[in-house]
Amino acid sequence: MGAPIPRFATVGVIGLGLIGGSVAHGCRTRGLAARVIGVDTDPGHRRTALRRGLVDEALEQIDSGLEQAELVLLAVPVGAMERVAAAVGARLAPQVVVTDVGSVKGAIVPVLERALGDGVQYVPGHPIAGTERSGPEAASGNLFEGHLCVLTPTACTASAATQAVRALWEGLGARVVTMAPGDHDEIFGAVSHLPHVVAYALVNAVLDREGEGVDLVQFSAGGFRDFTRIAASNPGMWRDILLLNREAILRALTRFRGSLERITEAIAQGDGEAIMAELERARELKGRLT
Amino acid sequence: MGAPIPRFATVGVIGLGLIGGSVAHGCRTRGLAARVIGVDTDPGHRRTALRRGLVDEALEQIDSGLEQAELVLLAVPVGAMERVAAAVGARLAPQVVVTDVGSVKGAIVPVLERALGDGVQYVPGHPIAGTERSGPEAASGNLFEGHLCVLTPTACTASAATQAVRALWEGLGARVVTMAPGDHDEIFGAVSHLPHVVAYALVNAVLDREGEGVDLVQFSAGGFRDFTRIAASNPGMWRDILLLNREAILRALTRFRGSLERITEAIAQGDGEAIMAELERARELKGRLT
Repeated sequence: MGAPIPRFATVGVIGLGLIGGSVAHGCRTRGLAARVIGVDTDPGHRRTALRRGLVDEALEQIDSGLEQAELVLLAVPVGAMERVAAAVGARLAPQVVVTDVGSVKGAIVPVLERALGDGVQYVPGHPIAGTERSGPEAASGNLFEGHLCVLTPTACTASAATQAVRALWEGLGARVVTMAPGDHDEIFGAVSHLPHVVAYALVNAVLDREGEGVDLVQFSAGGFRDFTRIAASNPGMWRDILLLNREAILRALTRFRGSLERITEAIAQGDGEAIMAELERARELKGRLT
Repeated sequence: MGAPIPRFATVGVIGLGLIGGSVAHGCRTRGLAARVIGVDTDPGHRRTALRRGLVDEALEQIDSGLEQAELVLLAVPVGAMERVAAAVGARLAPQVVVTDVGSVKGAIVPVLERALGDGVQYVPGHPIAGTERSGPEAASGNLFEGHLCVLTPTACTASAATQAVRALWEGLGARVVTMAPGDHDEIFGAVSHLPHVVAYALVNAVLDREGEGVDLVQFSAGGFRDFTRIAASNPGMWRDILLLNREAILRALTRFRGSLERITEAIAQGDGEAIMAELERARELKGRLT
């Protein structure tokens, strides 16, 4: 009995960081693709991807080597998506399916639809996975196992293309949900982008205080260290996310300031019951997460 | 060659939760005390402490069984410290050294000095350690290894007593620093209490949004989950901390709101350079933590 026939003959992955490298690796180790071609301008990433067997071939540029791909994943930072999409769209044959992993959708989906052109079938996507580590050294074909992947098809998206991208993510072990790009941005503005903004502000508030001559960081324990870890995320990538999802993030910040005002007022009034109500409510959420 | 003579003949530990249980266990496993007597009103805690060998003996009440102790640790929530200190002070012989683990100092140190009375030698303390778990089941004699323990002696504290308490914590593997109670509260208001308040406010802001009919929590990933973990800390214990260190926490909240205003304004203006400056600054801190 031979191995099952792969779902895809050749998959192209643009960007061999943690996410792109993990998709590439999963395509190979899970028999989803007969061949995986990676593209990365960073020679270290290409070397690592080849050495670790994430890809069959590693290209420096989006060139003719990519033309065999029937499905191409754009796994570059959101700020680089438009430029990469234009290069990919100019190179690929019609009917090739293209998807992306950008963590903002409303602002980039119409831009990518235009940049890719009518020749390809674009399906917007966003896998909800990551680790503290980054780069192809940390990539794993199991990164998406049990995690969500959100697809945000639009009126322009062909349903056969959406099915192909769904098959890719389900093959990688993810649970696929679809929603409108605007709903995606509202949700991830609240549960992902807002926590990052709050972590940056908290770490900088402690640094502001240190500016007054107190060495606080040596005393930091559990709680604060979790914030410093979040606040150490790639600044260029997060600047672009904050700019591109600005409206939803500002709405989430307004809600956060209201909630902060409530607990601050309870503390200022020395109102133990009101404090307890806020703390009990926040604790209940933990039980809903498994 | 026999074992070295323990530093303490008998140590008493009031409260066999994570911290008290870990001190008790460390005293026994590290040969710091010849005998450890625990006190806890919770029969489950007493059973677990005996079964796990955290203590030699477990009492239900602060009674004559504690009179042999030459050093007593108060390891109860800050809200219960005064009552427990009064019971301990009434029971112990003069010259017994008493210390505590309360994470607020300015508000409780004078209260404990009064409640314990002149008969004992009180040394205020606060070990900076903890895990996500709580209770004697999670206790470990190695919990404090490599962590800080802050002592905040006052004009009333005998230096020989401070030396004894320092020897206890150093014997448990902690690094001991001393400072004034007010400095302690200012520092931990910023690096521990503020992050908790911010985490409560963030989780509740997401719940406020869900009240509008959106199920957000199913989409939560890394960043938000760290906050929900912090926000799941014991509500009664944290209410008391927020009440007892109110002034320092309100000052820290004012600084945080200033920092939050800065990054919010940069996002609202779409000012990529200003956003980048905040993000780069926050990231630098990670490098200072090892």
